[in-house]
Formats: sequence, structure tokens, C-alpha cells
Amino acid sequence: MHKGIATVCLSGTLEDKLNAAAAAGFGGVEIFENDLIASAWSPEQVREHCDRLGLSIDLYQPFRDFDSADPDTVRRNLRRAERKFDVMRRLGTDTMLVCSSVSADAVDDDELLAEQLRALAERAGEHGMHIAYEALAWGRVVDTWERSWEVVRRADHPALGLCLDSFHVLSRAQSGGTSIDGIAQIPADKLFFLQLADAPHLNMDVLQWSRHHRLFPGQGSFELAAFTSAVLATGYDGPLSLEVFNDVYRQAEPGRAAVDAMRSLVALEESLGREPAPASPPELTGYAFTELAVSSAADHQVARALAAMGFAHVGQHRSKPVQLWQQGNARVLLNSGTDQATAVSALAVDTVDPAASAARAEAFLAPKVPRTRGAAEADLSVVAAPDGTSVFFCRTAAAEDGWMSDFILTGANSHALAGLSHIDHVALAQPFDYFDEATLFYRAVLGLAPWHDAEFAAPFGLVRNRALTDARGLVRIALHGTVLRRGDWAPGVPDPQHIAFASDDIFASARAMRARGAPLLSIPDNYYDDLEARLELAPDLLAALRECQVLYDRDDDGEFFHFHTEVLGDRVFFEVVQRVGDYSGYGVANAPIRMAAHRAARQA
Amino acid sequence: MHKGIATVCLSGTLEDKLNAAAAAGFGGVEIFENDLIASAWSPEQVREHCDRLGLSIDLYQPFRDFDSADPDTVRRNLRRAERKFDVMRRLGTDTMLVCSSVSADAVDDDELLAEQLRALAERAGEHGMHIAYEALAWGRVVDTWERSWEVVRRADHPALGLCLDSFHVLSRAQSGGTSIDGIAQIPADKLFFLQLADAPHLNMDVLQWSRHHRLFPGQGSFELAAFTSAVLATGYDGPLSLEVFNDVYRQAEPGRAAVDAMRSLVALEESLGREPAPASPPELTGYAFTELAVSSAADHQVARALAAMGFAHVGQHRSKPVQLWQQGNARVLLNSGTDQATAVSALAVDTVDPAASAARAEAFLAPKVPRTRGAAEADLSVVAAPDGTSVFFCRTAAAEDGWMSDFILTGANSHALAGLSHIDHVALAQPFDYFDEATLFYRAVLGLAPWHDAEFAAPFGLVRNRALTDARGLVRIALHGTVLRRGDWAPGVPDPQHIAFASDDIFASARAMRARGAPLLSIPDNYYDDLEARLELAPDLLAALRECQVLYDRDDDGEFFHFHTEVLGDRVFFEVVQRVGDYSGYGVANAPIRMAAHRAARQA
Repeated sequence: MHKGIATVCLSGTLEDKLNAAAAAGFGGVEIFENDLIASAWSPEQVREHCDRLGLSIDLYQPFRDFDSADPDTVRRNLRRAERKFDVMRRLGTDTMLVCSSVSADAVDDDELLAEQLRALAERAGEHGMHIAYEALAWGRVVDTWERSWEVVRRADHPALGLCLDSFHVLSRAQSGGTSIDGIAQIPADKLFFLQLADAPHLNMDVLQWSRHHRLFPGQGSFELAAFTSAVLATGYDGPLSLEVFNDVYRQAEPGRAAVDAMRSLVALEESLGREPAPASPPELTGYAFTELAVSSAADHQVARALAAMGFAHVGQHRSKPVQLWQQGNARVLLNSGTDQATAVSALAVDTVDPAASAARAEAFLAPKVPRTRGAAEADLSVVAAPDGTSVFFCRTAAAEDGWMSDFILTGANSHALAGLSHIDHVALAQPFDYFDEATLFYRAVLGLAPWHDAEFAAPFGLVRNRALTDARGLVRIALHGTVLRRGDWAPGVPDPQHIAFASDDIFASARAMRARGAPLLSIPDNYYDDLEARLELAPDLLAALRECQVLYDRDDDGEFFHFHTEVLGDRVFFEVVQRVGDYSGYGVANAPIRMAAHRAARQA
Repeated sequence: MHKGIATVCLSGTLEDKLNAAAAAGFGGVEIFENDLIASAWSPEQVREHCDRLGLSIDLYQPFRDFDSADPDTVRRNLRRAERKFDVMRRLGTDTMLVCSSVSADAVDDDELLAEQLRALAERAGEHGMHIAYEALAWGRVVDTWERSWEVVRRADHPALGLCLDSFHVLSRAQSGGTSIDGIAQIPADKLFFLQLADAPHLNMDVLQWSRHHRLFPGQGSFELAAFTSAVLATGYDGPLSLEVFNDVYRQAEPGRAAVDAMRSLVALEESLGREPAPASPPELTGYAFTELAVSSAADHQVARALAAMGFAHVGQHRSKPVQLWQQGNARVLLNSGTDQATAVSALAVDTVDPAASAARAEAFLAPKVPRTRGAAEADLSVVAAPDGTSVFFCRTAAAEDGWMSDFILTGANSHALAGLSHIDHVALAQPFDYFDEATLFYRAVLGLAPWHDAEFAAPFGLVRNRALTDARGLVRIALHGTVLRRGDWAPGVPDPQHIAFASDDIFASARAMRARGAPLLSIPDNYYDDLEARLELAPDLLAALRECQVLYDRDDDGEFFHFHTEVLGDRVFFEVVQRVGDYSGYGVANAPIRMAAHRAARQA
């Protein structure tokens, strides 16, 4: 299908936006009038530039508040429209968007409204143009697609049709004000345009929600597949065009945002079951490994910590300064061959079909990471996640071409000395601009689903969390980021990352690690006093938690126990977790405690 | 009066917060429980630290959702309260805040609710403690102060009283749900605590509004003087305590935020007419001058631009590398003696009483700027605004001790060669964290009032604007900043500042400057085409606007004409404006055009 994007989705001048849209593979654009007015290019120059880039101009958006109870306003608006038809002719586009009025003098009479729109359509038709009429969710009179369709139907002019926008429909549908049920009955020749946007569920004024918090499909909570299917069921074959007003994308690098946007449409097409679609995501069976880049200042510290946590140095890479540490099925690579500060440099997931996983990643525009490898070494596929973390597709169990054959075994035993069985999750701090992009990336590329959105007050500002997991909970990725971009005052560890290992006996693990000298994090006594006051825990349990400095959470599904190491190097620590029952969260309520404790440990 | 601040207002660990509050001169704090729980200090250590700092602990905030229709929940909550009384004893505080319940099982029966609170108060009384009960604006049952007072009255226990919070009262009063009218009738001995917060008028869910957008008094739109007066009329003599949940302050440097907070309470006290109050702001009579720091790379460029705009180099400072340029009563100093990049380094306002202005600034905690001066030079008072700009208090008309006597006159004539008469306004980009602080600073220190709040989509992200002016419009300061903290992608001129000069004949000024070779900014033709389409301007006027590259705005009060120079150095440009009628705005609608044009000029 023809894929388009509105210039309002992207940051920059009109030139920046057009270039970014074309580079990401879009076939068309909607031009928001303000972008044209501020451009030094004439409409003809814009048209030529779009031609060179292979972009069609699918829609022009100049109008607010066309209809009016005041005849002189209508006369002025018709005059203005004539001027804009001239601009459109120069741009080489033939469809003008007209939104329902939000003005106090909006027409509250379907017949009169139809008459005014018919007058506009008549003029449009004379210029070979079309009017796509759209109901804003906060329109003064017309605020549902049903009402806009009623008016278009009454006006009954070939140059007048509907524009449907998923945000306006689904935001109202959420509160029962409208429904997608009747959409499929609209005649295809009266459906002139389709705008798509996702959004998170927010309890706020719908105009503010729309203007600031729209997202690309797959980043929010709207049922876009159902909506789009209903539209396509009419026979509509025009553009799928994104219109996303979002404060972050408005100031983010437009080239990257455009790729993110294109990824969202590919994922939407997949969810519609239309051909050609990328292969469905192969089943994931867990983490193959997590790799840490370790700085020369921190490599011994990290290795000592792993040893004290019961890991063994079981392998050494054949050609690179990379160590494999293992306990049970938890594997950590320490890579001292980068110039990076200590950080999570790669996730490796085990998939039943690494080649299919890699093909899927390519279909979703995941950037490939170039990689050098020795003669006999495994040919692993690697792509970069939005925060720069490499994502490997592996099959640890494979007899041949397994990544572990790249390592010379040291003979050390990976027996679970401290009771750790596997990697429970990896927690990655997201750069401010890329949080929503990361959601879509892992959702599309790995087939994970987002869960457990949370926002909490951390000692140094508000933080948001979101986990993505496969259906069986074998690959869990926990994203976190600040709600506002962090400023200069960030005295805590600003954006720590961590690897969480699973234990079946948290207290035994904690005691074993303490006995081996692991750098475990101290938790304030006040925390345990409060736990007692809040939860009436059994005295034995409370004593064990306090002794082992274990944090505790519970919900209707089960219990969660976890403890942490101090921060190693600049921004990495380890966590040990035990899940009891069906607890599927991450102990987010305890995160501020942990963060303050990390700060205190740094100051001590 | 005793001034306090809740720890939730400030960023950091509990230790950071306490230190910041004490350094800013607060006498007390409210401790939010989470801050204590995350602290490595025991309650006794916190108490000792507060004693050393001279801080009382006025309130402890551990409770949500005390009352319940479920007897077992009540039993558990009473048990928890007992534990918290123990913590409070160790902290040395005697007042516990209990908010109205937001839980689904909140008690919807005033008699039962009173009974449960009485049981809590009875236990509190046994420990020598008090319960301050507060109606949350989004409480499930109790959501107005009137209802909370009804319950407290029924419970009729000496250890139970009210906490009033200006946000909860005034946010609801805005929609008519409550009123401050009856507050003065509450007996003083039943009013246990007073929490103060301001907020902007926002159309959003009240909980989100409260949790993210509260401000310090004087930074928002609430009528805090009327509210506080009503409370004080009861005879209440407890703390004035700030409780501000704000996303920016939650991550800003706490020492600075605490000073901002203290300034807000000094200003509130002044507005209450209580002694001792700072002297009222002396009348301002205009700008004495604006000073630009000019880098060595840009000083000739800026001087050439001023000359081409009709300014004359009329004076040279006796001891410093500072030039005085003048046209009419518009005066600009060029200071090449700093290491700074080219930027507005100082505003100088003319006041009828510089000494009184300086004393007022000091009373409002404005940081003094140390200054070297030569033997015979004027002793000017200078303070630093939140963005670092120096603010001078002058009296240009004074025969002696005038600042102009520091300059040796060159003999050049300040005749208005291009028709400029004075400085209309100075526009300053505000650092993200300091926008609200700046509002309060100029409001309190100079006695200006905020006007013309606007938010608009600029080419590189959302921007907000706010102007502050004196009653006569002689000193106008236009603040602007990004709605989100800007990231790496900021290819426009990121945070330009400018000085706007007034003309009585914008076209004559533009023509004169063009003839003299001023570096004027080119405006796209598309802008004028749209102006014609929108406003039906007379052809002559439109032609003149286009010829002179003048931007245009109008509203019900009048018209506004303005044009700009290109950016000089890194971030400074000049504007020329003409106000017709009573237009009091700043042409904000044209700002995106100007910003895109500046970008285009830089790329050309």
C-alpha cells in the first residue's frame, strides 16, 4: 500500500522533513500549511524537490474552522480556499483537508453545514480538487465520524468526501462516544483519506492528548489493526498516512523518526494480514547471553563480582578479548576490547530459527551491525536496538554453528555455586528520545509484548518503566527512562543498566554470595520497619529479608524477592530475583529505595 | 511566620533536601515518608541533623487511604498508624497527615468515617500526637474541605483537626465545586496545618494536574493571597508550608529550588500585607540600557549592524572595553571585556529609586553580582536573574551618580537616523529548569506582571512564551523556552536572544536600515501569500510588508509590525517593532516564520 507521513510528525524545516520521509521509504507526504509558509521554497520548488525524491503530495492541510454561522466569515473562508487551491495547483496536489470547526460560531445544523461544504466542494471541483472533511474529537458540533459522514452524505457532492483519523475515532470510542462498527459501510468513493496515529490511554483533555501524546502505530494502546481493517473493508485504496503530534518527535532527529514511523506501518500491515508480510517471529527460548563492555578500569571489578556471585570463567574467545562467564544457564560475556565505558553492549536471544529472526529484523528496518569474525567463528546476525545495544540471534543448543564454539573452554565448571539458573531480565535505561521507538522495535523485531507500564518518583526525578516479554516470559527486557530529559543535576547514578539473574532460593543465594565477598547493596533499616508496618510479614521472613538485605514485593499473583550489587564501573549492576507464584512484575515499588541506596553507596 | 517546605518539593535524597531547605532559610519541613524510608539515616539521625540545621519537623506524611468499609483494613491501618507514631516519636514530630481516601472501599457515611478517624485520633492522643485530615480534590468520597470539616466536626476529638491545601481547594473552586468563603469560620484550634501550592490553569485531570504541574506561589494563576488570608482570618498561626509536586523541580538542583521556594513565600507574605514586608516596587520608567557581551569574533559584526541600523557610538567607558551605542532613547552597551560568547549580559531598568529597588531585590533573595568599578564611577546595584543575566537598577535622568557619567562622550549624535525611539522589549531564552523561577523573580523583584502566555510549534520543537511587563508597558521582558528540554538535534539557532527597538514608522525604519546596509532577515514569499489569503489586507499595505520584509499581526486591540536582523555571533539578533493602537503582544504567531528564516539564513 502507498505509505505516507504528515510533515507535522517530524522535526525541522520542510526541506528536512521531506528528505527524511523519502530516505525512510515513504511514498507520499501530507504537507501542513505552516511548514510551507515558513519555507523559503516556492510551491513549485517544493513540488520539484518532491518529484526528485519520489514523493507524492497526498494532502494539503490549510484549514481550520471553515463553516460558520456568520455569512461574512463563510465568504472570507471561501475566498481563502480559492487562494489555497492555487497553492495546491502549484504544489501538484489535489486533496485539501478541512476539519470540523471548533469555533464558537460553528454551524449546528446539518443541512446548513452540508450547504456550506457543498459550496466549498463546488469550487474545489472547478479546480479539479477534492475536499476531505474530518471530524475532530473535540469539534464544536461535529465530533464523531458518524456526524461528519451524515453531513458529507447530505452535501452529496463528488468533490466532497471523508477523512478518517484513527485518533479522533478511537479516542472517542474509548469513552463510548463513537464506534468503528459502521465504518465498513461507507462507500469507498466517499472515503478520500486515512490518517493513522496511536496513543497511550491517558485520562486527559482530548485536545491536549491529541496535540502532545500521539504515537506511531504499535507504540501506544489503540486497536489500530481493527480500525484499519474496518477502513480497508470499504474498498479504500488510498494512502495509509501517519499523522502524529508528539512533543518528543517534534524535536528529535527527523531521519531517525521517519524510520521509526515507517517501521510502525510495516508492523501495522503485518497485523492486517496483508501480503507481503514479514515472516512471523520465531519462538524465543531465552537469553543466550548478555554482553558487557568493560572498561580497563572496571574489568577486574566486574570479573571479581561475577566470581563472588558464583559465576565461573568458563571460556575465552578465540580471537577477541572476550571472556565467557557462566552459572547454570546464565551467561555473561565480558568484552574488554571496546573503548566503551562499562555498559550492556549486547543482548543475545535464543531463537528456534536465527535466520528467520534476522530476516524479520531486516524487514523491520533494524540497522545491521557490521561485525568482524575469525575464520572458524560463527556467523551471527546482529542488529542495533534504538539505544545502540546490539541484539544477537542465536541458537545455543545447536550442535554446529553455535556461538559457544567461538570460545575455548577453560575447563571451569558452570555449576550453580550461588543457585542462579538463568537470566531473568535485562534492564536498559533508554535515551530520552528513543523510549517509544524502543517499544516498537522490540515489539516488531522480536515479537515481544509490552507490559507493566509504571511511573514513579525516584530520588532525582520521575522515572517511567516498561517491560517487554515474549508470551512465555523467557525473554524479558525492562526499559526505563526519565519522564523529562535529565538536566545537569543528576548526582545519582544517572542511567544504570542491569542484568537480573533468577534464583530459586533468594536467601541461600544471598548468603552464598555474601560468604564469597560479593559487593552487595545495603538497604536502610527504615525500609524493613515500613515493610513490617505495611504488610504484617511473619517475623522469620522479615528477619531473613533484613539479614540478607532482600527487597520484597507482592501482588495478587504472587511474591517477588530481589537484591542487588553495588554499581560496577559507571553504570552497571547485577540483581538476583526470585519469583513466587505467578508474579510477573519487577518490584518497581522498590526502585526508589534501590536508587537511593546506590547513591549512598557511592557517597560512602 | 514560620515557613516550611515539604521534602517532596525538592530533588535528591532526604539529606540533600534537608540541607537545601535549611540553607534557603526555611524553619521547618514536612517529611514525606518515602524520603525517610529510602534514607540510610535512622529517624534519630534525621532528627539530630534537623536540630543541627535549625529545622523543625512540622509534619509526617505516611498515610493514604486510612478509612475503609472493610473492618480488617481498618484494623491493619490502625496497627500501621501505631508503628508510624513510633517513627514520629523518634523523629520528634507530633502531627501526622491523613488524606481522604481514594480507594474503592472508602467510607461513604460521615458518621462511620468520623468514628474511624476518632479511633485513630484517640490512639494519636495517647502518644501525644495529632492527626491533620485533608480532603484530596479527587478523594473518592471526601473531596472538598467542607466535607472534611464536617467529618472532623462530627468526630469531635481534640487530637483530630484539618489540613488545608491550597491546591485541593482552589483547583476545585475553579469548577465551582467548593469555595473559600466559609474557611474563616473554622475554629483556629481545629486547623492543624496549611499547605500552599500554586498552579497554572490547565484543562486536565485534577490528579495529574496536582502531581505534575504544581508551582510555588506566584508562579501560577491561583489566588493564593485570598486563600491564605481566609485561613489566617481564623487565627491560624501554624506554618506556611509549601507542598509542590512538579516534574521539573523533582529533578532540578535542590539548593536553588529551595531559594526559589523561599522567594515565593516572601512574596506571598507581601501580598498578605503583613509586617515586615519588603518596600513596594519603585516605579519603573523604562530601559536605561541593554548590554551585550560580544566575543572578539563578533564585536565588529555587532557594531557594524548597530551602525547600519542608525545607532551612533556615542560613548566609551572610562575603565572598561565597553562602548555605548545610542539612537533616540534606545541604548546598547557592547562589552568586549568578557570571555563570553555574544549574548545579552545585562538589562538595566530605570527606576525612580534605585536604592529602594536594590533593597527590594535583596529582600527577595536576588543574588548580588560583585562588580569592580573605577574611582569616579557610578555605584550601581546589580543582581543576577535566574538565567544569569545581570539586572541593573539605574536612574538615567539623575544629574549626578548617573551611569552615563562613566562614559567619555565621543561627540557622536544619537539622533534617530532610522526612527528608533527606545527599547520595546528584551527577549531572553530561559534555561529549561528556570522558566517558572524567572517568572517569580521578575514578578517579585521588579514588580512586573506576567502576560501573554503562549505555546507554539516551532520548526525544531514546541516553544513556550511569557511576557512580563510593568503596568505602563515601559519595561517588557519576553521569556521563551522549549516545552521539553532540548536534545542533541537542534540545528536551528537553539536559544536566541534579542533586543526589540520601537519605531513609529516601521517601513521608514526598514528602508533606512536597508539603505545603510543592515543585515536584515529575508522572509519567504509564501508568508505574504498566506497573509493575503487570511487577512485581505489592502494591496498597498501588503506590497509594503513584502517590500520591507515586515511581519504582521493584529488582534482586537490593534496591529503589530516587526522585522528582524540576521543572527549576529551565536545567538543574538535585533528586532524593530511598531505597535498600533493598544496591541500589547509580541507577534508570537510569526515566531516560527522568523525561526525558519534564521535557519535558512545560516544555511545559505
